[in-house]
Parts: sequence; C-alpha cells; structure tokens
Amino acid sequence: MRSGKPIEVGIIGGTGYTGVELLRLLALHPGVRIRTVTSRTDAGKAVADLYPNLRGHVDAVFTDPEVENLSGCDVVFFATPNGIAMQSAPVLLEKGIVVIDLSADFRLKDADEWAHWYGQAHACPELLSEAVYGLPEVRRDAIRSARLIANPGCYPTAVQLGLLPLLENRLVAADRLIADVKSGVSGAGRKAEVPLLMSETGESFKAYAVAGHRHWPEIVQGLVEMAGEPVGLTFVPHLLPMIRGIHATLYAVPIDEPGDIQRLYEERYRDEPFVDVLPPGSHPDTRNVRGSNRCQIAVFELRGSGQIVVLAVIDNLVKGAAGQAVQNMNLRFGFEETTGLQAIGLYP
Amino acid sequence: MRSGKPIEVGIIGGTGYTGVELLRLLALHPGVRIRTVTSRTDAGKAVADLYPNLRGHVDAVFTDPEVENLSGCDVVFFATPNGIAMQSAPVLLEKGIVVIDLSADFRLKDADEWAHWYGQAHACPELLSEAVYGLPEVRRDAIRSARLIANPGCYPTAVQLGLLPLLENRLVAADRLIADVKSGVSGAGRKAEVPLLMSETGESFKAYAVAGHRHWPEIVQGLVEMAGEPVGLTFVPHLLPMIRGIHATLYAVPIDEPGDIQRLYEERYRDEPFVDVLPPGSHPDTRNVRGSNRCQIAVFELRGSGQIVVLAVIDNLVKGAAGQAVQNMNLRFGFEETTGLQAIGLYP
Amino acid sequence: MRSGKPIEVGIIGGTGYTGVELLRLLALHPGVRIRTVTSRTDAGKAVADLYPNLRGHVDAVFTDPEVENLSGCDVVFFATPNGIAMQSAPVLLEKGIVVIDLSADFRLKDADEWAHWYGQAHACPELLSEAVYGLPEVRRDAIRSARLIANPGCYPTAVQLGLLPLLENRLVAADRLIADVKSGVSGAGRKAEVPLLMSETGESFKAYAVAGHRHWPEIVQGLVEMAGEPVGLTFVPHLLPMIRGIHATLYAVPIDEPGDIQRLYEERYRDEPFVDVLPPGSHPDTRNVRGSNRCQIAVFELRGSGQIVVLAVIDNLVKGAAGQAVQNMNLRFGFEETTGLQAIGLYP
Amino acid sequence: MRSGKPIEVGIIGGTGYTGVELLRLLALHPGVRIRTVTSRTDAGKAVADLYPNLRGHVDAVFTDPEVENLSGCDVVFFATPNGIAMQSAPVLLEKGIVVIDLSADFRLKDADEWAHWYGQAHACPELLSEAVYGLPEVRRDAIRSARLIANPGCYPTAVQLGLLPLLENRLVAADRLIADVKSGVSGAGRKAEVPLLMSETGESFKAYAVAGHRHWPEIVQGLVEMAGEPVGLTFVPHLLPMIRGIHATLYAVPIDEPGDIQRLYEERYRDEPFVDVLPPGSHPDTRNVRGSNRCQIAVFELRGSGQIVVLAVIDNLVKGAAGQAVQNMNLRFGFEETTGLQAIGLYP
Repeated sequence: MRSGKPIEVGIIGGTGYTGVELLRLLALHPGVRIRTVTSRTDAGKAVADLYPNLRGHVDAVFTDPEVENLSGCDVVFFATPNGIAMQSAPVLLEKGIVVIDLSADFRLKDADEWAHWYGQAHACPELLSEAVYGLPEVRRDAIRSARLIANPGCYPTAVQLGLLPLLENRLVAADRLIADVKSGVSGAGRKAEVPLLMSETGESFKAYAVAGHRHWPEIVQGLVEMAGEPVGLTFVPHLLPMIRGIHATLYAVPIDEPGDIQRLYEERYRDEPFVDVLPPGSHPDTRNVRGSNRCQIAVFELRGSGQIVVLAVIDNLVKGAAGQAVQNMNLRFGFEETTGLQAIGLYP
Repeated sequence: MRSGKPIEVGIIGGTGYTGVELLRLLALHPGVRIRTVTSRTDAGKAVADLYPNLRGHVDAVFTDPEVENLSGCDVVFFATPNGIAMQSAPVLLEKGIVVIDLSADFRLKDADEWAHWYGQAHACPELLSEAVYGLPEVRRDAIRSARLIANPGCYPTAVQLGLLPLLENRLVAADRLIADVKSGVSGAGRKAEVPLLMSETGESFKAYAVAGHRHWPEIVQGLVEMAGEPVGLTFVPHLLPMIRGIHATLYAVPIDEPGDIQRLYEERYRDEPFVDVLPPGSHPDTRNVRGSNRCQIAVFELRGSGQIVVLAVIDNLVKGAAGQAVQNMNLRFGFEETTGLQAIGLYP
Repeated sequence: MRSGKPIEVGIIGGTGYTGVELLRLLALHPGVRIRTVTSRTDAGKAVADLYPNLRGHVDAVFTDPEVENLSGCDVVFFATPNGIAMQSAPVLLEKGIVVIDLSADFRLKDADEWAHWYGQAHACPELLSEAVYGLPEVRRDAIRSARLIANPGCYPTAVQLGLLPLLENRLVAADRLIADVKSGVSGAGRKAEVPLLMSETGESFKAYAVAGHRHWPEIVQGLVEMAGEPVGLTFVPHLLPMIRGIHATLYAVPIDEPGDIQRLYEERYRDEPFVDVLPPGSHPDTRNVRGSNRCQIAVFELRGSGQIVVLAVIDNLVKGAAGQAVQNMNLRFGFEETTGLQAIGLYP
Repeated sequence: MRSGKPIEVGIIGGTGYTGVELLRLLALHPGVRIRTVTSRTDAGKAVADLYPNLRGHVDAVFTDPEVENLSGCDVVFFATPNGIAMQSAPVLLEKGIVVIDLSADFRLKDADEWAHWYGQAHACPELLSEAVYGLPEVRRDAIRSARLIANPGCYPTAVQLGLLPLLENRLVAADRLIADVKSGVSGAGRKAEVPLLMSETGESFKAYAVAGHRHWPEIVQGLVEMAGEPVGLTFVPHLLPMIRGIHATLYAVPIDEPGDIQRLYEERYRDEPFVDVLPPGSHPDTRNVRGSNRCQIAVFELRGSGQIVVLAVIDNLVKGAAGQAVQNMNLRFGFEETTGLQAIGLYP
C-alpha cells in the first residue's frame, strides 16, 4: 500500500458536475493534494465561492487551463466537454503526467467511429490503442500501469456491469440484447439549455435519442470484448425527473438452460469492492447508491419465458463518472482501491 | 347526440385518487349530475372538505355505500380496491343501473386466472363473459350497449394502444414482446404505506414486481385478441419519482420487412379522438398529457437491427383510469365521446 | 352577456410559459379566435410542434411580431420579457386594439421608479397613468372600460389578495408588514440559465433577491392604495423545488382588537369568483389550485401574540399570469367573468 | 484526543430516518462499534436487508429493545417516537450508560409544559433539570460531562443558530421575532400516513400547524436563555416538496443601530466547526448542506426599514438530528468534535 507524500492532482474543467464531484471526493482523499483546478470561464474565482458546499474543504482558485499551470501534477483529470482532452493529453503525457479523461475522447478504439459519433476528426488517433478503458472490474491490471485512462461513460458503466457475467460465459444470445436505461438529469451536465430546466424535466419522463446515442458504440465495443463475438444491442435512454442516478433494465435471452444465474453473479463480483449483487427477488433503488461509488445489481430469470432481466443501478456522477475516476487513480498510484470512496448511499 | 336532462351518477369509493379524479371530470361534464358519492371511512363529510380543489364545484356529501343510496342512479362507477365491485355489481345491474368498474374485478375473462392473480375466488364469475373490456379504440360498439364495463388498467391501456397496430396486422413476432413501463406514484393509489412516502419514492427510481404483476394477464389477454395468436410478453413495471404519468417503452421484432410503420399508426388512429401519433422522430413527454385523456405515441424502426420501438404516454389517472371511464360513459349514454374530456395537458 | 362572433386575439411572445399558458386557456375559450401568435425566434414553426400538448387544439403558426400581423386583432396580449410591450403598445392602441400586458411595463405609476427597478427609461411614460392595473378584485369597473391593462405580477397578486381585507379596513400596522413568499420555478420563465436547471433547483430551497426584488414596488404601490397611508413591507421571495404554485405567508400586527377576521375575509370575497376563503384552521396547498385561476386563503390570529398570519396560494401561471389576463379580457369584452376559466385544480 | 479501543454504541429505534442516518454516520466513525440496534417491529432482521445502502457497512441484526440487550454499551441513542426514551433512560443511566435522546423527551425544562405539548405526563420529571440540551454552539462544556443529552429538534437547531448572535447581544426586539421555516418531508419521519405520500407532498407546498407546533416552546426556551429576557416568537412551519433540508427565514427588528451584523456573525461562529457564515449578499441553498453536519447562514440588514433578515439552512437529518447527536457523542467521549462528520454536502 502506498504511503508517503500526497500526489499532486490537477482538474481541467472544474465547473461542471463531474468536476465538482471530483472535488468533493478528492477533498477528503487522504493521499492527494489538489494543486490546480482550471476553468476558462471562471478563472480567478475561488472554487468555494461557486460551490459553497466545498467551503472550508477546497481552497483552490480556478486558473486558466494552460499547460504550465499543470506542470508539477502527477495526474490530471479532464472533466471537460468532448473534444478538449484530445487536444491537451499528448503534451501532458509527454511530461510524464498520468491522464484520466472523464470525457469520451479516448473511449472508442476506432478513430473513424469516434469521428462519426462525435462529429469531428480525432486529434490524436495514435493514442486510442494505448488508452486503457477504465472499467476496473474488467481490466484492473491494465489500469495499474496505464499512462492514459479513458473513464467510462455513465450508461456504459451500468450496462456493462449488468451484462458482464452473462456475456463472459456466453449464456445469452449476444445479438438480441436490450438495454432500457434511465438517467437523472445531472447526467446531461451543467449546461444552460432549455430542455434541462426544472420546468421542462420535473414531473415528466421521456425517452430521447432513440434513433442513436453516443454511448451505444461505447457499450457495444465493451460487450463485444466480453462476449468474444458480435453483439446486437438495442439501447434506449430515458430522462428521469430527478438529479442523480441511473437504472439499467437489461433484457437477454438465454441460449440454453442458463443454470444458477444468481450464483453466477455473486461469484463474479464477490471480490469487487464496488459491485454488490443483491439477494434474489430484490429491486435496487437508485437512492441506495446516491453519493456512493457502488453498483447494485439484481437478476431475474422469468418463469415461463426464461427471459433474463438484470437491474443495475449506479450514481451517474460517482461510479458513472468521478468516483470511478478516483477508483482508477487509486489503482494507478497504488492506493487502496477504496480510499476516499467509502461514502454510504444517502437514504432517504 | 344526446340531449335532455342529465344522467344521474353514483361513485363508489370516492376518496381514492381515481375517485377524486372522476369527480374532477364529472363536475364539469354538462350531461351529468353527481347524485351519490360513497366512502365507508368518510361518510358524513363533505367531499369538498376532503378535497379543497373541488370547493364550489362539488357539493356532495360522502354517504355509506349502501345499495339504497344508489337507487336512482343511471350509472355507478366503482373506484374501489379490487374485490369490492364484484360484490355489489349484480344487485345494481338487476336494478337496471349501468356499472363501470375502474377496479380489476371484471377485466379478466377467466375466473380461475382472476382467482390466481387476485388471491380470492371471484364472486360472480357468470358476469365475466358479459363484461365489456372498456378500451374504446378496440371495442367501441360493444361499449355502446354494455351493461357492465370493465375499465382497463393504466399499464394495460398504454401497452395495448402502443402495440395494437402491429399486432392487428401481424407484423411482429408475438412471442417476443417486451414492455418496459414506468409509472408515477399516483398509480399506486392513496394508501398509507411506507413505500409510497415522498421520502421513499422521491429522487429515486426502481423496478418492482419483476417476477409477476397483476396487469400482465390483463395485457396478454388483450394482445392475444388483437394478434389472434398466442403472445409472449415480458413486462417490467417501474416506479417514477413523480405523481402522474405512464411511459411505456415497447420492443417488438418485425417478422418481415414491416413497411411504413409511421403511416400504419397514423392511419389506425386517424379517427381516434384520444390517440395522437406524433411526427417521426418525436419522443413523447408524459407532461404533455398530464390532466388530459390523451395517449401520445411515437414509433421508431431502428437502423440496422430493424427492431421496432414504440413509445406511448398517458396520464394514468385520466386515460389510464377516470378519463377513460368517462369516455366509456359518454359512449354508453350517447354523449359526444369527447364531452367533458377536452382538457389540454398541463405544461409546464 | 356577450354573444355573437368571437373576438380576434393576438399573442406577442408565445414561446414563454405565460404565452403557452395563454394558448392553453384561450384554445378552449368559446368566445375567442386565436388569430396571431408571434415569436421572433420561432417564426414559421407550428405552435403545436413546439408544444405537443396543444396538438389538435391550436393550429396557429408563429409569425414575426410585426404590427401588420396584429391588425385585425381586437385584443393583443404581451407575454414578453419586460421592456418590449412599451415599445409597441402605443401603435396598437392607436389602431383601437385593446392591450393586455403580462409583463411589468405598465404596472408602476411612477416612470422614475420604473426606470430605477427595470434599468432603463420608460418608452411611453404618458401611458402609465392611463393603464389600469388588472387586479379585478380591486378595480373591476375600471378594467371593463380600459384600453390598456397592466396584468399584475404573480407575487403581487398573492400578496395583495392576502392583505386586502386587513388594509382596506385599517386593522393592522401598515408600516410593519412582512411577506415571506415562495414560488415554483416556472415563475422564472423559460430561459436557458444555469440557476434554473433541474440539477440546481430540484431537491433544494433558497431565498433570493432579499436585498431587493422588482415586485416589491409593485406590491407596495397596491398596498398603499388599499390602506390609504404609507406602507412598510419586508418582502422575501424564495424558490421552491417544484414547477407551479405560489404560497404567500403574510404577517401583520393588529392595531387594536381586530374582531372576527375570518368573517371579514369571507364577506370581502363572498362574490369573488376566484378568491376562496377556506374554513378556519385550514392550511391551503398550492396543489389545490394547480392549473386553476383560483386564490385560496386561510387566516389565523395567533393566541397570545395576536399576530395575524395569512396564507394565500395561487398558480403563478394562471391567477398569477395568464388566467388573470383572460379574466381581464372577459371583463373588458363583456364575457361572463369565469368563461374559459372553470378548470379545477389538478390533484394529486 | 481520545484513542484506544472503540466505544460501544446502542441505538434504540433503528428503523426510522434518524435511526438509519445514525447508522450511516456511525458505520464510518473510526472510534465506535455498533453493538446493538433495536427495533420492536423488525427484530430478527438484518439491518442491511431493510436498508440496502448499509450493505457491507453494517452487519448488525435488529434486536428487541430490552435493557439487557443494551448492557455493555457506553452510550445509547434514542431515535424513537416521543414518550419512549423517558421510560427507559433512568435504568440505563443507573447502569452508567450515557444517553443521547434524539426525541423530544428531555428537551423542555418544565414538566408541565412538556405534558401540555406532548399530551401525557412526563415519566421522569426529576431528570429534566439534569438533562443537557445538546446544542454545542451554546453549551459545549456542559455536554462534555453530561450523563443525559437532549438532542435538539430540527427546526429549533436552525432557528436558534440563526438568532443566537442577535439575542446574546440584545440587538433586536426580543418580543417581535418571526421564524418562517420550511422543512423537507423526511422531518416528519418514516410513518405510514397519507399526508406524507409522494402524491400528497410532491409538487406542492403548504404551511401546517400554524396555530401551534411542539417545537415552539423548545425554541422559545432556548431563545429566552440566550436573550436573558422574555421572548415573543411567531413560528410558522411549512412542508417542502423535497426530502432533506430545512431553511429558516428569520425576521428581527433592531433596537438601535445594530452595527456590523455580518462581522458579528462571523466572529461569533469563527471557531465553530459546523456553522458557516456566508459572504455578504449570499443566499444559502439547502442542497449545499445535504448529507453534511453544517449550518450555513446569511444575514441581511434591509435598506430603509432596517429590518434584519437571517437565512439559515441545515440538513434536518444531520445537523438537525443524527449528525448533531454524533457531534454530542464526540464531545462527551473526548473524540475530535468533527470525527465521522466530515462529509461534504451533496451537490448537485
């Protein structure tokens, strides 16, 4: 276990929800010092003036996102809109700084597919193969030695953790997967847009992006790797009238008699500190993981049809973003994996 | 079109959410007089004392649900828990009173299946075949002459309207249907139960009854009739952190090239006053039908997979309960079908 | 009572919440035809494409807010940001069109005070004295013959209706009034601003503008007129984590023994169609007036201290904006005052 | 600072919201061992089966609340309805166990007043004078040596902390105080009651208990002690459509020129770890203290009127209940006062 002096941390884009969540987690992490927090729009302001929940915990001042402001960092987190990290990551890597990107810039392996879904050419396609997709439950060892970690998206985290044991063991028809997922509005970020207003999203529910969502290729890429075969996935995201939480309802058709699914999940995740398989018959609530880095999962095999239904919940800002990024940092820098991530879900 | 003196209406169980919603709608209906509103627990109290939104609109006083209090009614609505209507309906029918039951007592045709799902023997199985399942879009003519109308459940209304055009035309694999449905908490009724508290349901989301829900056999019964063949349906209900609204996300696999699905839906529902097929690419919001008797539907055929995804929204208390009951009453008593049901969805 | 052909209505700024609420109300009003709906940003789009709750009820297309588009209107509503109506009202008035302004442009009588609070010179100060402040409970007769009606603000409506009987009768110390008011977020309008996001306003509560709010001079002006003496008012607005509804909690100190306050309120409002004094001991819920044009009021005289506490609730978009505007239109054009405003509060 | 082996903790009534919040906090407190958690209704069940957020953190099983189950405890928390703690506290105290009561049983000094407000005779009036009212900001030293600590109510904590500096310094008219307070629904507890349902409390706002609330005498007792003179307090509680959070809006009239109020507050609370005076002009949000033990305060002196307005927010379950109880335990047992209470408010 690591000891000694704290590592120096930089955060690019500290004014969005994933950025401020990183600050909330890192402020109480015993092994880090927050050295730099950048924000192009709020440079010069104290972080705690914008985010009064951090008063007394974070005394940093937002700076401009210039590279020189990040020298001296051991690790830099990008909590930026897509398309930013790929501009700066190469320079930081050259300086020997570890990069953990919470945006989508390094999640896809195929630069053409990235360009298709994100509407621009990739700035450093040569790094895509090196980048390690930071889902610890799948590639913990690679994360331990990575220079560049692509932190998974929120939906992809919930869907992949929910389907992993089934696909690894080739128990279900990989070409007929359905993910009906629901997210709280904080997943859409801190953007001044009419559709995200309380008056628009409160007391209402809707699907969106049914015809195509950027998380679809990311999920498919991950599932293909788990399954070792092509995957057909129908993915329908929905917007919940609440702030934090993702609930994935996953449908899969067993190939043969699938055996004891409950036990399969329990064994697969037995040693995982942040994946919790609930007792048979449970229905996970998103509230039980609110503010925590945990994924709670329940599995059903329906009588008659045999259809398998998996329910997986996470907090989109924690296990779906900032918490998983800290988990990756812990792995990369030799901290206990759970350091700074012990918070219990805030119920009620 | 009917004219002349108003019909006399009785409501059994006026203190639940469907009962008070009936009162809200009937109070402004030009062709009815609210003669009797019963409530075992609140007999003697003025309706408007319990429900101040009705002050000045409803001057009825709750009475005991004795049959003599209902003599003189032309129609009696049951807005009671399951198992009540089947006790009293035969006597009322004998007196020539039309019965519209908003509970589940007369929805299933098979008395054994009813007993299985509702945990008791049916009190008048001989009426099950006579009862008309009150989904006007499917059996408008039968409703016009029915003595006993079984008003559909909220989930069944949304799911059946969503799948109707596909199944009637045998365009999809009837044995592989999936209904992932989400409901506001008012669907669970006005019951003093911990799981329905604001602190339990607010800011959280979960599935429930995945292993089996009473609306499953009701939906399957309806779908089988539409499809004219056996149906395999996976049905997963969820609880939304909001009050009113149901959103059904429906998944179906086309058998062959299904043709122009959008046009199919538009034509099927062209003359339906309360089913509104949205333009291609739309995503219906539950808020847009809040307080209205409308079902809004959008249809997607996904590129590549060909999977059909249907989105259908209703207000569970209106088109999913009291509004549909009034629609059935209108049909039965010769009113214009839309009388008293013109309210526009309350946005924002 | 008016009959004959419908009046022709124009709405300037139909894309905000008060504009779409006007459309919801006017679409079902039997005496009007919606002739023109303008929107600078959405000109050319069908109203119902932007607001799917209006599909089938409103077939208008947004046009540019040019004066020629408004010729032929009998009445024009301004549902615009402050500072717009005062630019165009003079031209419309010249053409003989009645103007009902839902913004603040004509609410204050003093042009200097208006300039102070709204940060710009008033464009037509000569109209300020002519404009009739459209609170029907105070000046119904003047409204009946007005050319230019200044529709009251949402907070001012609730506070003035709550204090009116006390001040008219000089029962309380006019220099020590306190209004602690709470509003749903729709009161802030449909603006793309971060502080109005669901993630910012959901599950949280705060005061705002404690040092000074634009509704303060409007309320004071009204209270002074009622009291016939100078008024001292402390006004603290708060933002509720919900969409519709205002709750005013009003504190006043009786001068002498105030007599039977409950009866005073009941008598003052006995003939008012939209003010409803609740029975003694009641606590009005904002939900009971949601979607309706009603103000519900309860009055308490506290034991011991004698302090008077008044609770008043309205729907900020109806009695606090669009509903009151329609009420004013009804008065002005000789309709029954309640025409098109009969909707019952949407509970639950 | 204390070190050595953990203290043994018992919790009576672990199934309510304050009980489960105590568990959430104590599970991560490095100096305690949760020895016993009682629940009459859930005895025999694992705590984490009822509260899945605690899985992996709390392995206790609910037991019956028999005294023998509590032997061996160093401290026992009562998280019970009013009227329970006073039955058992004497026996526990005799055994040398420290008692921290989160209910109201020991908050009032006058047994007759207690009986008046709580509707029963007090079971051990002789303990009322000994009990220490556990507001650390007022009587930290007494808490350090107390046997019996009466943990303050949620409203009383917010109101007293908000008014303390003004009253201690006799700057305002003590006979004209107004507290307009708003609480999330979790303050009403985990009780199966219709008025607490999501459908009743969501998207709505109301005052309640205007004629008299049990927290009124508790607050007055505290204010009298601060002011050293009689106090006149008008107290109006309201119910917010959200789960956690209290916002107190406090009105006080200065006697003379009050001086620099902002500085007064900053100095009074400079060394308080859990009271945070915000910069001038701030408006505290309840969200910024959600899940944290902090009280955030802003102070305004209004231009013209001179009226002082104080805004104070807490999380009713933390600083308003379980967090303050842990703070008191820390003081009593020689832990650092902030141990286990470092969590940062959960924004967004």
